[in-house]
Amino acid sequence: MENTLIDQLKFNGDGLIPAIVQEQSSSRVLMMAWMNRASLEKTVATGKTHFWSRSRQKFWMKGESSGHTQTVRGIAMDCDGDTLLIQVDQVGAACHEGYQSCFFRSLTDQGGLQITEPRLVDPDHVYGKK
Amino acid sequence: MENTLIDQLKFNGDGLIPAIVQEQSSSRVLMMAWMNRASLEKTVATGKTHFWSRSRQKFWMKGESSGHTQTVRGIAMDCDGDTLLIQVDQVGAACHEGYQSCFFRSLTDQGGLQITEPRLVDPDHVYGKK
Repeated sequence: MENTLIDQLKFNGDGLIPAIVQEQSSSRVLMMAWMNRASLEKTVATGKTHFWSRSRQKFWMKGESSGHTQTVRGIAMDCDGDTLLIQVDQVGAACHEGYQSCFFRSLTDQGGLQITEPRLVDPDHVYGKK
Repeated sequence: MENTLIDQLKFNGDGLIPAIVQEQSSSRVLMMAWMNRASLEKTVATGKTHFWSRSRQKFWMKGESSGHTQTVRGIAMDCDGDTLLIQVDQVGAACHEGYQSCFFRSLTDQGGLQITEPRLVDPDHVYGKK
């Protein structure tokens, strides 16, 4: 099929593209992670977000350990074709530290950092103690 | 100052960090661009978003050509310290193609792409014909 999304994307030199994940119901930006072509194809095919972990060099489904999966509601690409914006329904907390969003810390006017939301779950209960 | 945002960030091997830009009033994700340390410092100091263009290898202020500037309302960092989320007030269209958001195209159920919003301005009028 011509004009498909995947064929128009520009993956970087490592074959990856950043994917911003936004909760459709609240419009909160939950996280940003990287996809390769296979993880994007799997995301489209299954309706659950899949990514590529650069640190672990591993294909993973969001929620595979925690149960905090993301059901895909929409996939948009940007004008340059080098970033994705994925709308999801999020089960539980998106962040592995137990917050709804990975962006739970903001810069203060004094140049420090403050936590801007409550922790929803204890990571030790979700992932086990390390 | 200890515990500042910039000192906790992980810039990549090129000294860059991705910055997601979200319109505070509408919660729309407008664009994603890259910052180096200098452009982030300039963003904090001036309250207007500044980035690093990888294609042009150039420091730039959003809106320097178009007038479509972004006034910063908040800066958050993610759990890993390798992505920024910046809340802004956007003047005009964020996208250089004349759309409010750079994410104006979405994947359809049939695997094609559709434009999901109206074009606000004619890019030729903003940037001049090329």
